[in-house]
Amino acid sequence: VKPLIDARVAVVGLGLMGGSLAGALRGRCRDVVGVARRTTTLEIAQSRGLIDRGTTDLIAGLAAADAVVVAVPVRAILRLLDQIAPLLQPDCLLMDVGSTKAEIARQMAVLPDHVQPLGGHPLCGREVSGVTAADPGLYKEKLFVLTPLSRTSSAALQLGTALVEAVGARVMVLDPERHDRLLAVASHLPYLVACALVGTGQSEAASDAAIWDVAASGFRDTSRLAASDVTMMLDILMTNREAVLATLDAYRGQLDVMAGLIRDADEDALRSMLAALREQRKEIWLHPC
Amino acid sequence: VKPLIDARVAVVGLGLMGGSLAGALRGRCRDVVGVARRTTTLEIAQSRGLIDRGTTDLIAGLAAADAVVVAVPVRAILRLLDQIAPLLQPDCLLMDVGSTKAEIARQMAVLPDHVQPLGGHPLCGREVSGVTAADPGLYKEKLFVLTPLSRTSSAALQLGTALVEAVGARVMVLDPERHDRLLAVASHLPYLVACALVGTGQSEAASDAAIWDVAASGFRDTSRLAASDVTMMLDILMTNREAVLATLDAYRGQLDVMAGLIRDADEDALRSMLAALREQRKEIWLHPC
Repeated sequence: VKPLIDARVAVVGLGLMGGSLAGALRGRCRDVVGVARRTTTLEIAQSRGLIDRGTTDLIAGLAAADAVVVAVPVRAILRLLDQIAPLLQPDCLLMDVGSTKAEIARQMAVLPDHVQPLGGHPLCGREVSGVTAADPGLYKEKLFVLTPLSRTSSAALQLGTALVEAVGARVMVLDPERHDRLLAVASHLPYLVACALVGTGQSEAASDAAIWDVAASGFRDTSRLAASDVTMMLDILMTNREAVLATLDAYRGQLDVMAGLIRDADEDALRSMLAALREQRKEIWLHPC
Repeated sequence: VKPLIDARVAVVGLGLMGGSLAGALRGRCRDVVGVARRTTTLEIAQSRGLIDRGTTDLIAGLAAADAVVVAVPVRAILRLLDQIAPLLQPDCLLMDVGSTKAEIARQMAVLPDHVQPLGGHPLCGREVSGVTAADPGLYKEKLFVLTPLSRTSSAALQLGTALVEAVGARVMVLDPERHDRLLAVASHLPYLVACALVGTGQSEAASDAAIWDVAASGFRDTSRLAASDVTMMLDILMTNREAVLATLDAYRGQLDVMAGLIRDADEDALRSMLAALREQRKEIWLHPC
């Protein structure tokens, strides 16, 4: 395994995550090849200086790569891994940036022996998508979870770590199942919470359209994630169903407690609960992130 | 009723809302008197140029007022109205900026005949509070709901409207009950949604503290409202219980549908639902607010 500066990196998928990663890696490795399905995507990536060169041909794009990063939605990653692995040089690092890790880890575990798989998940989503939204600064100071397999060599993990640090992110190593359980709470739940909020507003709008006039910054921020890319989110939900359902249950339990206290007008208990949650919320982001 | 430029305005309560309102009104009326419980609050308001003069004495502060704006939490408004009304000149405009309007309207309806009551609710909350957070630009381009009573004279409504427009806000006239029903969905629900999210994170943290490491911008924005002032929110919830409970039920219904589709792995239905919600969310804020 070569040091990053001498490595040829291929990025498969040049959307928000892949395009941003490619752009951030350029100049920090030997070269960055972008692989996309559409030539227009490659042209935009090239004109914005995100890649050294681009191709729509997976074979040509991956032949010389020392590291490959697959940056497409989770189930597209699952479909691509088997197709990509046979095309890679011995010891090539095969990373992904998928938002759930357990299913990907299971599939990585049975890839041909000559590749070095390494799960990855950068925590820097946005509701915008596509190469036109790509921004080489996207990963700066963000957390980038790595989920190495038992078969991942320390050299491959080291190259993966160097790649993460080169784009300005911080590495956190997690077990794939633990990652998925944590992210169900930290990311997949907030998405569903936001969607249900928009759905409730929509129902109200059916009887009183003024609801959208009075929806201000509070509603806007709380519902922001409902604008997330649906294909990406559906892949996440479908590959993490068990953990998502468990955290939805826990969440509904919280709402039930609050509804009960409001119904009973139990002010003292409600005040204690809300005050503790306020302290907790303030404590999480003492330092703005 | 005098035109605003000749009116003496008293603002009772110099927190985020009152301090900002006072500061925005200064120079657009004859003078702005701030009334607060603590002299330190008055000193800060004065040093920041938010008021022309300040007093802790309600009687002295209100004696010459042509318009009074009560800017404290809802139940403090309910306690103050009866105390303030007898101190006012004939035809004095008595406004409030409380976040729920039905209970306040009921109490305004039975105030002494010589005052001109007018409910108000500016939609520009923040999670920060206190005079140190006051900002005369707070109301700029925001919606300011007015809930006139049948007893409110058109001259009083006109002065209230002038006051709202002087601070840079747009007037929307609503019936108090309708206001409360709409705001239950648009504002009180998002708060509870955010609180329940923090509560779910806290439960998870009890078994895995790494949850706060992986909580990124999605969790942060969706949970932002949980940092709101508890006294203010408790007053809102307690004076709008029926509408809040109804919207919580509707919200839980939305979550139940989503949980069911995830449990059944009914991808087609889930995709349709999430795609429709995404379009709805994007449509609400075609123009950033």
